[in-house]
Amino acid sequence: MSVRLACSTALGAVLLLTAPAASAQDARTIAEAEALRDRALESNVAYSLVSELTTRFGPRLAGSTSEQASARWGADQFRAMGFDNVAIESFPLALWERGEARVEILSPFPQPLTVVALGGSIATPPAGIEGEAAIFETYQQLLDQPEGSLTGKIAVVLQDTVQAQDGRGYGATSPVRGQGPTEAARRGAIGYVLRSLGTHDHRFAHTGATRVGEGTVPAFAMSPPDADQLRRLIRLTDEPVRMRLFSTAGFTAQTTSQNVIGEVRGREAPDEVIVIGGHLDSWDLGTGAIDDGAGVAITAAALKLIEDMPRQPRRTIRVVWWGSEEVSQPPPAQGLAGARHYAETRRDQMASHVAISESDFGAGPIYSLGLPAATPPAFRQAALRVLTPLGILNDPAPATGGGPDTGPTVALGVPAFRLNQDGTDYFDTHHTVDDVLDRIDPASMTQNVAAWAAFLWLLADSDVDLRPETSSAP
Amino acid sequence: MSVRLACSTALGAVLLLTAPAASAQDARTIAEAEALRDRALESNVAYSLVSELTTRFGPRLAGSTSEQASARWGADQFRAMGFDNVAIESFPLALWERGEARVEILSPFPQPLTVVALGGSIATPPAGIEGEAAIFETYQQLLDQPEGSLTGKIAVVLQDTVQAQDGRGYGATSPVRGQGPTEAARRGAIGYVLRSLGTHDHRFAHTGATRVGEGTVPAFAMSPPDADQLRRLIRLTDEPVRMRLFSTAGFTAQTTSQNVIGEVRGREAPDEVIVIGGHLDSWDLGTGAIDDGAGVAITAAALKLIEDMPRQPRRTIRVVWWGSEEVSQPPPAQGLAGARHYAETRRDQMASHVAISESDFGAGPIYSLGLPAATPPAFRQAALRVLTPLGILNDPAPATGGGPDTGPTVALGVPAFRLNQDGTDYFDTHHTVDDVLDRIDPASMTQNVAAWAAFLWLLADSDVDLRPETSSAP
Repeated sequence: MSVRLACSTALGAVLLLTAPAASAQDARTIAEAEALRDRALESNVAYSLVSELTTRFGPRLAGSTSEQASARWGADQFRAMGFDNVAIESFPLALWERGEARVEILSPFPQPLTVVALGGSIATPPAGIEGEAAIFETYQQLLDQPEGSLTGKIAVVLQDTVQAQDGRGYGATSPVRGQGPTEAARRGAIGYVLRSLGTHDHRFAHTGATRVGEGTVPAFAMSPPDADQLRRLIRLTDEPVRMRLFSTAGFTAQTTSQNVIGEVRGREAPDEVIVIGGHLDSWDLGTGAIDDGAGVAITAAALKLIEDMPRQPRRTIRVVWWGSEEVSQPPPAQGLAGARHYAETRRDQMASHVAISESDFGAGPIYSLGLPAATPPAFRQAALRVLTPLGILNDPAPATGGGPDTGPTVALGVPAFRLNQDGTDYFDTHHTVDDVLDRIDPASMTQNVAAWAAFLWLLADSDVDLRPETSSAP
Repeated sequence: MSVRLACSTALGAVLLLTAPAASAQDARTIAEAEALRDRALESNVAYSLVSELTTRFGPRLAGSTSEQASARWGADQFRAMGFDNVAIESFPLALWERGEARVEILSPFPQPLTVVALGGSIATPPAGIEGEAAIFETYQQLLDQPEGSLTGKIAVVLQDTVQAQDGRGYGATSPVRGQGPTEAARRGAIGYVLRSLGTHDHRFAHTGATRVGEGTVPAFAMSPPDADQLRRLIRLTDEPVRMRLFSTAGFTAQTTSQNVIGEVRGREAPDEVIVIGGHLDSWDLGTGAIDDGAGVAITAAALKLIEDMPRQPRRTIRVVWWGSEEVSQPPPAQGLAGARHYAETRRDQMASHVAISESDFGAGPIYSLGLPAATPPAFRQAALRVLTPLGILNDPAPATGGGPDTGPTVALGVPAFRLNQDGTDYFDTHHTVDDVLDRIDPASMTQNVAAWAAFLWLLADSDVDLRPETSSAP
C-alpha cells in the first residue's frame, strides 16, 4: 500500500488518459473530480440538509432526546441518499443541563450582566453566591496569584479572544475556559466569570466546555460588552465590586448519545476507508447551524455527489456524524465521547483507515488544503489543480489533525487532512444563541461541498498513501 | 415676535458684520455657530456622558431605582456643567416589571424560542398557556379573521419590519406590537407572539410598549431568526404547531419617575425658551445606550458648548432629560409620562416656547434638517450654510414633530424642528439586550453634537419665529 509517486512533473494529458486509474493525478480521475466540483456548485443539498436539521430539531444537546431524534433522522437521510451500511452506534453519556443562570453586580453600580453557564459547570447553592470580585485583565494575572489569595472571592477574567482567520485566537484563550474555574478554585475563589471566548462586541455570551469534576466552582461566561462594561466600571470607582452568581446547571441523568454512520463502498478496495464527517450534537443555546450542522451537511452532501457518480470510487468513503462532541463527561470519562467510541470500537481497523478529516469550523469558504507531510507531491499537485479554481491554496504546514472528532482516530496512527475554512467570523457566533441558520451563507457552503467532493474523489479513486513510509510498512 | 426674513439672497459678509445681532443669518452669528460646530468636533463630552451614564446605571427602567439614581446624577452633571435652574421634577408612575418569559414549540418539532415579553404585557397563569398556534404572515391577515375565530389559540404574526433610513418601517409595524395583542384577544386568542420589530437577522428579541389594560393577552416578541424558523417549520409539516407561553410580567408597584431640567439662560430674552433633550429612561434589557443615552448626552453636550461661549445667546435654551418615555401606563393614564408632565405643568408658558426637538434615534449621523413650514427662508439658508459641511441636507418636508417626548408640547402649539439621523441600523439594536455602549460610534456622535450646538446657536441668538403668522400673533 505504499505507492510512492515520485514524478510530479507535468505529464501530457493524452498519455494520462491511457494510464491506469489507480493514481489520483490521472487525467480521468482529475476530470471526474473537476466534474464533481462543478456539479456541486449547482447543488443545494448541503443547505437543504442543514436547514431541515436545524428547523426540525433546534438545539441538539449531547444526550438529549433532540440529539437522539436527529440521529434517527440522519440515518433516514443516509438511507434515502443511497449510502451503504447505515448504522446508529450508541454509547452511554451523562446528561448535563444548563438550567438557569444569572450574574449581577450588587455594588457599587447594581446591574445585571448577560451571561451563560459554562458547559459542565456545577450549580451554585439555591440562594446563589455573593462575593467581592477579583478582576483580572488577563488569565496569566490570575495564574500569578498565590494559593488561598482569592478566598471567598469571585474570580473574573476579562481577557479578549483575538480574531484570526484560522481560529488560533480561540486556541490561545481556550485554557481560560477549560482550566480557569479549577485554577480559580485552587486559589480559594468561590465562583468564576470569564469574558466569552468570542471575537465580536455584541451581547451574546458563549458557552463551551470547562473541566468537569472535583475542585472547581460555578463558572459563567459574560458577553464581550459586559466585560467592556466591567472595565469601565472599575475605572469609575475605588470601591470593591460585589457580585451575585446563580446557576442550576449540572449533570442530571444517565442517557445515551450516538454516532450515525453511512458509506459509499469502494469498488476495488472496500476495506480501505476514508472517514469524513461532522458532529451532530450542538450546544443548547442556538440551533447548532454553524457548529456543526454545517459540517454534517457539507460532508454528507459531498458523499451524496459521489454516490451519484456513474461508478463507485476505488476505496470506501465513510461519513460519520459524531455524537456528543461538545459536552465533557465526569471523570474518569473525557470529552469527545462519540469520537472516542468510534475509534475504540475499531482499533483493529485503523491500519485500513486511509485518512480522516472533519468539517467543524462553520460554513465559511475553504481557503487552503492541508495534507500530511508524507503526501506524495504528485497527489498534492493533482488536488491543487482541482481545488485552485475554488480559491483554495496549498497549506505548507503539514496537517497533524483533522478536527476535534478525528483526534482519537489520529492518535491511533491514521493520517489527517484539512480543508481549512476561513473562520474570521466563526467566533462571533460559535456557542451562542445566535448560532442559527441565518448565519450560513449558502454560496460559501456550496464551495465547501465542491471542495470536499472533488478532493474525496481524488483520494478515494486512487491508491495514494498518506502515511509515512515507516508506519505504512505491512 | 414675528420677524419675517424675506431676503434670502446672499449678502456680503462685510455688510453682515455690521448688522444687528438679532438675526440668525448675521455673519457674526454664523461665524459663532461655525466656531461652535468646529469646536464640537474636537470634543468628546457626549461620549463621556453616555459612557458614564450607561456604565454607572446600566438599564434605567421607568420608575426604577436605577432611573431615579441616574436622574440625581444627571442633575449633578447639569450643575457641574454650569447650567442654570437645575431641577428634578417628579411624577407618579406605575412600575412595570418584566420578570421571566419563555416560549417554546411543543410539537411537532419541540424547541425553545428566543423571546421577550412586550412592555406592559400581562403575565400568563403560573402554569403557562398552551395552545395551537394560528400563524399569520402579515398583521392584516390577523385583522381579516372574524371575531371568535381564534378561540383558544395563540396568535403569531411573522411580518417583517422594513429597513429604512428614516425609520418608517418601524412606523409601519408599530401597530403589530401596540394593537396586536388586543386585536388577537378580540378574536378569541389566549396569547400573542410577534416577530420583533427589528431589521436584522440576529437572535435578539425586541421589547417595546404594547397597549395596556383590559381586553389583552400575554404578549411576546420573538427574535427575527425565530420567525424565520417558524416559517420553515410550518413548511415541513401539516400538523398543527402547539406552543407554550410563560411570563411573570406585570405592573407591580406605585413609584415615581422624573424629568431632569437645566438651562443656559438667554441674555436678552430669557423667557423665550428653546427646548431640547432626550429620555433618560430605557428598557430594562440593554443599558439604553442608543435609546436614549445617546440623545440625552448629545443634547447636554451641545448645551455645554453653548454654556462655554464667551457670551450667552439671546434666548434661553433648556435641556430636558425626560423620564418614562418607554413604558405605557395603565388606563386612564397614557404613555410619555415625563413629556406629558413637562407640558401640562407649563401650559401657560407655551406661547414663549420658541421651538422643541428631541434626539431619540440613536447616535447615527445627522443627514438632514427638518424645519417647520413657516420657517423664514433666510434662517433656513443660514442653518444649511453652517450644517452642510457636516454632511447635512435640507429636508423639504415640513417638520411637524420633533421626537416622541416633544409630542405633548407640540400639541399645545409649539413648533418642532428635527435634526434627522440616519437610522438605517437603529432597529437592529433598539429595545434589545444589545443596546449597549459598544453600539455607539463616537465620531458619529460628535457630528450630532456639532450639528445641535451650531443650530441651537443660530436659533437662540436670534429672534427668528418658527410659528405660522396666524398663530404667532400676540
